[in-house]
Amino acid sequence: MATTPSTTKKLAAEFLGTFVLVFGGCGTAVLATSGEPGVGVGWLGVALAFGLTVVVMAYAVGHISGGHFNPAVTLGAAAGGRIAWKETPYYIGTQLVAGIAAGAVLLLIASGRDGFSAKDSGFASNGYGDRSPMDYNLLACLVIEVLLTAIFIWVILGATDTRAPKGLAPLAIGLSLTLIHLISIPVTNTSVNPARSIGVGLFAGSDAIAQLWLFILAPVAGGLIAGFTYAFLLGDDEAVSLPEAMES
Amino acid sequence: MATTPSTTKKLAAEFLGTFVLVFGGCGTAVLATSGEPGVGVGWLGVALAFGLTVVVMAYAVGHISGGHFNPAVTLGAAAGGRIAWKETPYYIGTQLVAGIAAGAVLLLIASGRDGFSAKDSGFASNGYGDRSPMDYNLLACLVIEVLLTAIFIWVILGATDTRAPKGLAPLAIGLSLTLIHLISIPVTNTSVNPARSIGVGLFAGSDAIAQLWLFILAPVAGGLIAGFTYAFLLGDDEAVSLPEAMES
Amino acid sequence: MATTPSTTKKLAAEFLGTFVLVFGGCGTAVLATSGEPGVGVGWLGVALAFGLTVVVMAYAVGHISGGHFNPAVTLGAAAGGRIAWKETPYYIGTQLVAGIAAGAVLLLIASGRDGFSAKDSGFASNGYGDRSPMDYNLLACLVIEVLLTAIFIWVILGATDTRAPKGLAPLAIGLSLTLIHLISIPVTNTSVNPARSIGVGLFAGSDAIAQLWLFILAPVAGGLIAGFTYAFLLGDDEAVSLPEAMES
Amino acid sequence: MATTPSTTKKLAAEFLGTFVLVFGGCGTAVLATSGEPGVGVGWLGVALAFGLTVVVMAYAVGHISGGHFNPAVTLGAAAGGRIAWKETPYYIGTQLVAGIAAGAVLLLIASGRDGFSAKDSGFASNGYGDRSPMDYNLLACLVIEVLLTAIFIWVILGATDTRAPKGLAPLAIGLSLTLIHLISIPVTNTSVNPARSIGVGLFAGSDAIAQLWLFILAPVAGGLIAGFTYAFLLGDDEAVSLPEAMES
Repeated sequence: MATTPSTTKKLAAEFLGTFVLVFGGCGTAVLATSGEPGVGVGWLGVALAFGLTVVVMAYAVGHISGGHFNPAVTLGAAAGGRIAWKETPYYIGTQLVAGIAAGAVLLLIASGRDGFSAKDSGFASNGYGDRSPMDYNLLACLVIEVLLTAIFIWVILGATDTRAPKGLAPLAIGLSLTLIHLISIPVTNTSVNPARSIGVGLFAGSDAIAQLWLFILAPVAGGLIAGFTYAFLLGDDEAVSLPEAMES
Repeated sequence: MATTPSTTKKLAAEFLGTFVLVFGGCGTAVLATSGEPGVGVGWLGVALAFGLTVVVMAYAVGHISGGHFNPAVTLGAAAGGRIAWKETPYYIGTQLVAGIAAGAVLLLIASGRDGFSAKDSGFASNGYGDRSPMDYNLLACLVIEVLLTAIFIWVILGATDTRAPKGLAPLAIGLSLTLIHLISIPVTNTSVNPARSIGVGLFAGSDAIAQLWLFILAPVAGGLIAGFTYAFLLGDDEAVSLPEAMES
Repeated sequence: MATTPSTTKKLAAEFLGTFVLVFGGCGTAVLATSGEPGVGVGWLGVALAFGLTVVVMAYAVGHISGGHFNPAVTLGAAAGGRIAWKETPYYIGTQLVAGIAAGAVLLLIASGRDGFSAKDSGFASNGYGDRSPMDYNLLACLVIEVLLTAIFIWVILGATDTRAPKGLAPLAIGLSLTLIHLISIPVTNTSVNPARSIGVGLFAGSDAIAQLWLFILAPVAGGLIAGFTYAFLLGDDEAVSLPEAMES
Repeated sequence: MATTPSTTKKLAAEFLGTFVLVFGGCGTAVLATSGEPGVGVGWLGVALAFGLTVVVMAYAVGHISGGHFNPAVTLGAAAGGRIAWKETPYYIGTQLVAGIAAGAVLLLIASGRDGFSAKDSGFASNGYGDRSPMDYNLLACLVIEVLLTAIFIWVILGATDTRAPKGLAPLAIGLSLTLIHLISIPVTNTSVNPARSIGVGLFAGSDAIAQLWLFILAPVAGGLIAGFTYAFLLGDDEAVSLPEAMES
């Protein structure tokens, strides 16, 4: 099935969407938060950028693949019965490759400025403890990543439920990612997405790599919790697949 | 009726939405306004966060419960004939529990940074007089809270009226909360929602608790004023329930 | 006709919408641009606030009155054939009263802080020359106000044309007001709306009042130019009234 | 064909839209990033302004012309089979004239402030190397302009595909331009649009003019790459023209 044209286009859509998410969100953090005070975009600009990547790409290709762009979303959607489990390895593999490709292209561009070092700058990597932007400890970082990923997946499943307004799910889902970043950039630099964390983390030095486990484990746990509980807590009786929910 | 599955899901929706509103809005204020100048998100980021909580959760679960997330909205909706008065105690009780739960989880996370004190930081609590962010007196704080809550409820009833564009009410209502925060954070730190005020106020010390009365009284008064006057001032003849208005 | 219930509700809608526009937009400028650096909302927050007033109120009451909230819009809509000329005096009179009422309530609230002076603070009034925020001369101020008001009215007429996407006009129109403020706050503090200029200008001292002529003349000229040229330049053959265009 | 009324209206729509894009986006950069720290709108405000020009004008006139406002979009749309190649010279010529007209009007207004110099201020021109806002080298600037223009055109073609939600394409496309600016203002001051680059570059001195080749070549290359690959990578079998996709 992975070789039929239809699946090829789904995976192309996931590749492009995840690439834009990582390149756009992390790119804004790496390239545009510098600059003089009052000019750089700050955490607010980064939060907006991450959210807009999902708004934009879910409108552009969500009707093809469902617009996951995130292994935690794919697993949550499978747990919620919106895509088949057998599709998840292809989705997740594509997302990881796209995230790393985006990190590599971002490194190429960022290196076009004298004196840039991915390791010294942090390269938008996620972290806890002494690598947390504002020095939050491991427990706080673990709790906020599990909780915010669960909220993200409940929002995704709710906004694409059969009763939800048609056509607005990409806006709601993307803006929920902006909200999530507004709360949690100071804590973990915000993951809720292993592909985003791995995509830049691999280039950010051994200390960043050593902390990646949290930003795989916590989003996956949050996604599965939300996916398995949605139907019981909130769900409609007739769920539809995510790509259908994002069609016209 | 409170024990039928349908009501259970309504209350789950109100719990989740109110939790996200308080955790997301107050969380941004507590966690993300610190940081170096030009990096922290400022009042603009907090205003955006509060509005996005409602945009996002009204799209995610508004089609289940109507997306109140606020006792003043529930009372205003009842006064405007959009939900039954007998449902209001369940809604309001759920909102208060969710607000306090969000405050407790936020306290857990904020305490993951050395030196944090909910009382010293204010913990995003509302206040008037010497607890107003910019020292506005009681009269100014009372007037602005009553007025802005009334505007909020008129917007909610108008944007969900039968003639209003379908599917856009959550966006309009959420963005009105951003607008309300842009105006009034400096005055009262913006309540218009007793569940938000109580949810963090209980953890912010005795001075904060002593001022909670205003942030219960004023939003409730504003909500009831708008709810009882909407039909006469602006209303269509055939009102529909809020959950229906947020369906597709 | 002004005494039929239907017209009463139209005028109530225009009153509420214009009140929120002036109170929300000018209120953000007066109350929330102060504060420490990196905390106050700045010109970006004010631009967002003005735009959101129109997004929100056009969704809430646009389906009743067309959502003008601005004499220049009312005259442009009449010139473009979207409302009857005989309705314009009622609309404009209501808008002016609402603008002044909003200015008065804002003055009451702003005065709740020690040391506030409407005259010394400028009270969000518009100005040119030495009253321009960044000292732009009369010619620049005149050109930008006529041009931006014309663009505003072309956008309004285009986004409510029969071929335009249904239900999105309030969003497009409101965001165009944010865009207009982003460009022109430094030049004139942005009017494009005589009701907004008069509503706060009357309370801002004699120098502000002496410059009001420009912020009546230029928006009206821009609105009429756009209204009379729209059909020839861009128009569809079958125009509909603004309230109809904002219905579901 | 260029003389039939229908084409005249298309070109009027492209003129107005491109004028607003260049005047609004570059105008915000030239006029509103000055001011005291914490007051000027910074890169975030400029990114928002550019995106809003497209959101607003695509809703206002996209149903007439397709809402290109950019030669790279026109060429990408032709490569993607959405408009006829024979229409492209008229579109592109109109866009270039509109961009230069916007630059001229902006110069008139900016000159209304004592001491303004288009050359010294940069006048929102694009640049690489020593004219890059943060000193990025030619390779980084070339790569990011080609890549981001390609992403822009993939988004445009995807969001207007037959399966995409109706009526939301202007929002998605405009917000993608905000995202593109958030990432790349520090690198090239963001072009992705030759009409925008030429429109202000011609007035910004000989150094700016000498670098215009990159901001013509790179966006055109990115647009063509995306246009020619869309159908294979992501496309639906039945494409529609852009104006149709932006109708109600």
